[in-house]
Amino acid sequence: MFLEKIKSPGLAHLSYIIGANGLAAVIDPRRDVEIYEEIAAANNVRINCVFETHRNEDLVSGASLLADRTGANVYHGPNAAGEVRYAETVRDGQEMQLGDLRLKVMETPGHTDDSISIAVYDDASGKDAVAVFTGDALFIGDVGRTDFYPERAEEVAGLLYDSLQYMLGLGDQTILLPAHGAGSVCGSGMADREFSTLGHERQNNPRLQIADRDGFIKAKVAEHHYQPPYFRLMEQLNLSGTEPMHPEPVALNVEDIKSLGDQIARVDVRSAEAYAAAHLPDSLCVPEDMIPAFAGWLIEPEQRLVLIAENADQAWQAARHLGRIGFDNIEGYLVGIMDWVTAGEPFGSVDFLDTASVEQRLKQQSIDWQLLDVRGLEEVEAQPMQHALHIYVGELPAKLKELDIDKAYTVMCGSGQRAAIAASILERSGYKNVNVYLGSMAAWEQQKSVA
Amino acid sequence: MFLEKIKSPGLAHLSYIIGANGLAAVIDPRRDVEIYEEIAAANNVRINCVFETHRNEDLVSGASLLADRTGANVYHGPNAAGEVRYAETVRDGQEMQLGDLRLKVMETPGHTDDSISIAVYDDASGKDAVAVFTGDALFIGDVGRTDFYPERAEEVAGLLYDSLQYMLGLGDQTILLPAHGAGSVCGSGMADREFSTLGHERQNNPRLQIADRDGFIKAKVAEHHYQPPYFRLMEQLNLSGTEPMHPEPVALNVEDIKSLGDQIARVDVRSAEAYAAAHLPDSLCVPEDMIPAFAGWLIEPEQRLVLIAENADQAWQAARHLGRIGFDNIEGYLVGIMDWVTAGEPFGSVDFLDTASVEQRLKQQSIDWQLLDVRGLEEVEAQPMQHALHIYVGELPAKLKELDIDKAYTVMCGSGQRAAIAASILERSGYKNVNVYLGSMAAWEQQKSVA
Amino acid sequence: MFLEKIKSPGLAHLSYIIGANGLAAVIDPRRDVEIYEEIAAANNVRINCVFETHRNEDLVSGASLLADRTGANVYHGPNAAGEVRYAETVRDGQEMQLGDLRLKVMETPGHTDDSISIAVYDDASGKDAVAVFTGDALFIGDVGRTDFYPERAEEVAGLLYDSLQYMLGLGDQTILLPAHGAGSVCGSGMADREFSTLGHERQNNPRLQIADRDGFIKAKVAEHHYQPPYFRLMEQLNLSGTEPMHPEPVALNVEDIKSLGDQIARVDVRSAEAYAAAHLPDSLCVPEDMIPAFAGWLIEPEQRLVLIAENADQAWQAARHLGRIGFDNIEGYLVGIMDWVTAGEPFGSVDFLDTASVEQRLKQQSIDWQLLDVRGLEEVEAQPMQHALHIYVGELPAKLKELDIDKAYTVMCGSGQRAAIAASILERSGYKNVNVYLGSMAAWEQQKSVA
Amino acid sequence: MFLEKIKSPGLAHLSYIIGANGLAAVIDPRRDVEIYEEIAAANNVRINCVFETHRNEDLVSGASLLADRTGANVYHGPNAAGEVRYAETVRDGQEMQLGDLRLKVMETPGHTDDSISIAVYDDASGKDAVAVFTGDALFIGDVGRTDFYPERAEEVAGLLYDSLQYMLGLGDQTILLPAHGAGSVCGSGMADREFSTLGHERQNNPRLQIADRDGFIKAKVAEHHYQPPYFRLMEQLNLSGTEPMHPEPVALNVEDIKSLGDQIARVDVRSAEAYAAAHLPDSLCVPEDMIPAFAGWLIEPEQRLVLIAENADQAWQAARHLGRIGFDNIEGYLVGIMDWVTAGEPFGSVDFLDTASVEQRLKQQSIDWQLLDVRGLEEVEAQPMQHALHIYVGELPAKLKELDIDKAYTVMCGSGQRAAIAASILERSGYKNVNVYLGSMAAWEQQKSVA
Repeated sequence: MFLEKIKSPGLAHLSYIIGANGLAAVIDPRRDVEIYEEIAAANNVRINCVFETHRNEDLVSGASLLADRTGANVYHGPNAAGEVRYAETVRDGQEMQLGDLRLKVMETPGHTDDSISIAVYDDASGKDAVAVFTGDALFIGDVGRTDFYPERAEEVAGLLYDSLQYMLGLGDQTILLPAHGAGSVCGSGMADREFSTLGHERQNNPRLQIADRDGFIKAKVAEHHYQPPYFRLMEQLNLSGTEPMHPEPVALNVEDIKSLGDQIARVDVRSAEAYAAAHLPDSLCVPEDMIPAFAGWLIEPEQRLVLIAENADQAWQAARHLGRIGFDNIEGYLVGIMDWVTAGEPFGSVDFLDTASVEQRLKQQSIDWQLLDVRGLEEVEAQPMQHALHIYVGELPAKLKELDIDKAYTVMCGSGQRAAIAASILERSGYKNVNVYLGSMAAWEQQKSVA
Repeated sequence: MFLEKIKSPGLAHLSYIIGANGLAAVIDPRRDVEIYEEIAAANNVRINCVFETHRNEDLVSGASLLADRTGANVYHGPNAAGEVRYAETVRDGQEMQLGDLRLKVMETPGHTDDSISIAVYDDASGKDAVAVFTGDALFIGDVGRTDFYPERAEEVAGLLYDSLQYMLGLGDQTILLPAHGAGSVCGSGMADREFSTLGHERQNNPRLQIADRDGFIKAKVAEHHYQPPYFRLMEQLNLSGTEPMHPEPVALNVEDIKSLGDQIARVDVRSAEAYAAAHLPDSLCVPEDMIPAFAGWLIEPEQRLVLIAENADQAWQAARHLGRIGFDNIEGYLVGIMDWVTAGEPFGSVDFLDTASVEQRLKQQSIDWQLLDVRGLEEVEAQPMQHALHIYVGELPAKLKELDIDKAYTVMCGSGQRAAIAASILERSGYKNVNVYLGSMAAWEQQKSVA
Repeated sequence: MFLEKIKSPGLAHLSYIIGANGLAAVIDPRRDVEIYEEIAAANNVRINCVFETHRNEDLVSGASLLADRTGANVYHGPNAAGEVRYAETVRDGQEMQLGDLRLKVMETPGHTDDSISIAVYDDASGKDAVAVFTGDALFIGDVGRTDFYPERAEEVAGLLYDSLQYMLGLGDQTILLPAHGAGSVCGSGMADREFSTLGHERQNNPRLQIADRDGFIKAKVAEHHYQPPYFRLMEQLNLSGTEPMHPEPVALNVEDIKSLGDQIARVDVRSAEAYAAAHLPDSLCVPEDMIPAFAGWLIEPEQRLVLIAENADQAWQAARHLGRIGFDNIEGYLVGIMDWVTAGEPFGSVDFLDTASVEQRLKQQSIDWQLLDVRGLEEVEAQPMQHALHIYVGELPAKLKELDIDKAYTVMCGSGQRAAIAASILERSGYKNVNVYLGSMAAWEQQKSVA
Repeated sequence: MFLEKIKSPGLAHLSYIIGANGLAAVIDPRRDVEIYEEIAAANNVRINCVFETHRNEDLVSGASLLADRTGANVYHGPNAAGEVRYAETVRDGQEMQLGDLRLKVMETPGHTDDSISIAVYDDASGKDAVAVFTGDALFIGDVGRTDFYPERAEEVAGLLYDSLQYMLGLGDQTILLPAHGAGSVCGSGMADREFSTLGHERQNNPRLQIADRDGFIKAKVAEHHYQPPYFRLMEQLNLSGTEPMHPEPVALNVEDIKSLGDQIARVDVRSAEAYAAAHLPDSLCVPEDMIPAFAGWLIEPEQRLVLIAENADQAWQAARHLGRIGFDNIEGYLVGIMDWVTAGEPFGSVDFLDTASVEQRLKQQSIDWQLLDVRGLEEVEAQPMQHALHIYVGELPAKLKELDIDKAYTVMCGSGQRAAIAASILERSGYKNVNVYLGSMAAWEQQKSVA
């Protein structure tokens, strides 16, 4: 009876394969499904069922692909808003038997109406659950967000409370296997720790310390979460099933890039530092490891793209990240910017400011300069930055009209990485005088603590 | 200007990727084309043309797939027997320029009517060819077979003679890059050496030592070659293009195998020794590395299969071999035979005889026993085995009526490997008393040399 | 805070790396330590401490090597029988802090006097333990063996009882991280399941269901365990530290093998089936995946070896297995037996019998024939085989005098694999008439159930 | 008879393994020798001889290590300046036989006194050479440098002329297998093409077009080559043999870096762009792929180092590059600069200028500003840059006294990469006002061609 966790970095998505006696189940597969087949083969098992704990809004499900390739059945909870075409609906109490391994469906709505959890039993060892796949209902250190049905906010928060109580009934000894880890857009309070049990969470998860249902609902309704626009696209895709990814874009040269013309978005997936030093004009800066969190805010679903990457590995990894959230139209990639620059083509740069420079500008209080804070609302509330204008980086494209194009801007965030993304948005939109506070809130706080 | 050779073992197929200045050409791609994309990416080049030196009869061409995935054009010589749907026809003298790299088409018919060679020039360094892709026209130590148009035997042998003279005109300094190495079914005299030049071949290739055209034709017409039945299938597939391979069959258990029933052929891809020791009843023995050479003789194109393999790696590698020659209907694989045997299921065995045992039986001259030699005709002519009945292993299924089912058979070949394949064919056909001379002709000759 | 489990197959040895805030600890590293450095690098952490839960008797510890390569300190429990030269002694209650991750030593003697467990705390989340590394004290479904101090049998069993009670005090929510999984020579009752918690074990582990200390001691003292002779060697090596492995033996040819002469043991690491079909005379059959369990019984510590393997991968994997248990004197490997056989060299074979054949022989009750059962004592007691003589495969070399060399033997075990090993021991010792019951007890039971 | 070429990027070093009939030879192995053992295993051969074509001055030879691990003998030419302790001296005409493969030593002094070439014969196919390993005597498009014995300049150039004539006598059909490709410090005129023959070189290699010996000597003596200081170290190391590399430095955090103090050199192996945007104070910029060419100029042999790298892969690759040229004292690496910056630590930046900005400054003719050209002498002679001061990047540390510390400098090279290295040298030495002309000569020429 083996269990493997597959992490998709950036999305902080966790999927699982669990098997026994020659059979295996996959829980919440991602779109690039080869890895499940490889693990199955290494363990001499056949994948015969695939579970979706809910209709994912933040990534393309690979369930339909995996079913096609292996002959497995896909199981999905009830109450999906529309028919999940490739899946069979399962109900509370239904069980799948894989030798001694028994997987039991629990309806645990709240995060979404169709959320299920799957309790894991070992029939060769006792009657109580050994583990539970909780999807987006319960995380390590947090619980699922409940903001997807704004008109039913209190109702669904209450549903989640009930689901959590139901789940905790499995007992303290139950290993917790959630669909996301720290860094996911599906919850902001997740612990950095990657392993836990229901017992540990019962005693320590902040949301599970709220004793009464009403208090829980109140706390959940008061939360603020961002919803990237691509969430709606994902929900549609995850009703119909998807095509295989081909995440191996081809190398392009300078002439190729130029001949592709203006309709092709240039996405610079190198580090923020490399982007800042020199970049192709009108590039969008989205460092490879930030693609899962930000590409869905900044790129239109059908937009054709070229990537600027340090090397082929980075480009292919970026394409893989993009494919997992449904962006497939990648024309190719350019390796670095040196061919571009040495061909005599123009390039852009963004300066990095340090804390001393930002302090000095703040003191000058020029009306031609603005400090722009692109952090999330929760961060701003926790650590406000005086004199800064706040617009979340994801919402910046939609809120540009709030920013006077003739002003100078210094962009900040938690560290400077998201600020570089924001600076690239401004540059593409014609803002001429933009720089980035490298270190941002983290360095600012260090400065204060030293002073 | 880089050049990489990709070997497909078993088929002894050689394909190439050559590139310069950001562009690359692939010559004779196989069906699993990911490797070309990986090499292209590692060298920061875009594959923009794909050449087929001729319509391959011994493997599925990946040209159409590679074109789909990369946007490259496919080029094929004239006179293909039917339209190659995915390719553009090129003519003698046409050139493709990839920066300083120039690829020039030479029409070199003979092996097939549509055979071309492609001379390689470096415009930064001289006027003469640096290398030449010769397809199946010229190999290291041999020349292409000319038996595909039996009614035009002398004509096409003459065409090949002319093509070779034309090619030798490129000069002694030209590096030779053929489509097959030693072990291919496309020629039996190929050298074991993997590198050569036109100069070395001009001086040493036995077929190029024949001074006159008529002598060459005579020699070629006198050759004997086998044509596996799947050649005709390949030729059809290679007109229309192919589907991607999914060479990752799933693990099966004993119950799965039994429930699949009699219509599924059992192909044991473990070593001949493992097969001999114990095997599922009615298995066909085709060790993984012998699949490319023998599966096309022994398996029907649309036949559904299960594999018996030592482990998942071997099963996947076997599936890859099968996919390259067009066999896709693999239901899954069983790991080893121990689950089968310990479930109490019956198993078969084949004994290995040593030289002394065979000698003894030969002396006894029993009319109930027959030594069966399954080597190729050339081998038998070169080293005849007295008292043995000769039927080539590939032709054995078609010639079973020549073998009395009530007799005992000892099967031999060059070493005992093909004899194990033949023994499995006999066992599946109801022959009850079959064993294998392990060591076969090789051990026999050693014995003689000692004696 | 990440945690990775590293499985060493065959030994069923589990080691771990756990890290947080840029630092990591490794628990019970094996001798080939590169894997820990790779995981550390992938997680951007520096390994700064290495724990040994006890002085391993079944494998060579890599702690000293890992410390040399990374600068980490090694920690070992008190009361080791001799000074562990490369380690610092730690005591109950001592703690190592890695950012929020706190590792607390618990003295848990019983399996050995120096056994410690290490409780894992997350200071950012509660006061109770999240997990515990239990070494060989507590497994999933079993507890540690207590037979290493025969003269103190009851005392150490009692110590283990106390240690387990102490450990269970960490709470049901604690994830269990033992040093071995199912298949280890360190315990026979381990569950096949790879994940558990203290809570699940408290409720289901058979040994933890014994309520009173005396009953526990009685049960432990009544257990039977085998002690391979190499255990003593391991204990010595694991006091002094070890040299790096070079597990890449070179390819040899037939002449090499012959010229190495008789002092070199031939170890056939191919499958039992391949061995049975044909093998070099005097080979010891130890299939690659059975090396960890059986090589320590059958090969002398300083013995020089050649391997017979299907391919280089199998040979290198076998050398890795051998190196992990201290066997380094590998002269090289021969690929398969075909070069040997076709060179006209003699080869041996072992026949496989099926259930019907064995039944028939049992009925005949010939005094010239003996059924030899080489299973472990526990297996024989659980499923006795009538009329069979029992000698455990590991003890066979030492007990050959009990077997009349003129008799015929059919060897059986649970399935036939260990029987093949035993058959090779007999053949090397001059027994001329030996075969193997393939399927053995498993097939026998199936037969009975059908009948 | 197989042949594989192993490229060590950056050094543009080419080593080879060639094998037949179960044996193999390695020519000019690098220090990380595992790759030769892997290729040998994959081809089922035993490495039984290792050749050094000469005492390498630009990399650490792995010959002694490979011999230790495989039991092979090492062969080295005569006249090495000192005894090569681990090697046997071979003389012109000596032959090694590996089955049909015959390797024949040719003394070909000139580049060094101990230079040998090794002609390759296939005894199964003709009498003439098939290929030749030429070491540093003959390259594709160039011949070896002859500047290592300045007092014997004309003599050794003449020796090389004679050696080349001797070698060409092998015939046009001979495949050329040199020890370096384009980009090596061992010759500047090498072709970008990776494959050639003696015939192609005879007709096209510029140095082989010089008909007479005197003309050849004159041309060679007129060449200019740089000699990095580490060359002398390599020559010493390559007399005595070397230790194995451990190219897996550990991750460090900000506190580690700070506590290591000032004696540790900080080497930033990220891209020049990343360095320019933000870097740790006093870092030396040596992008990972430029380490082989420049680290030997800029780092002292025994200097202790920390690396700043984008990720662990880049750090490990950098450490591998450093190890190949003898730098082993790596304390660890820091991932990126964000931890440093967000800890509030100071960082440096270097601005990139475009062509327009440089033109403007040139027009201003300020005496406080200087354009500094760090290209090699040959480049400067081929494309002079008016008004620029020329100091080769490798010689910059030694020539800093030529640069007024109060001036502003814009550094240029061919493209801007070496200029970033030079800028980091200046910054570490206290120059406050340094920027880099990105695009440099390449962009300047484009500009001119457009204008």
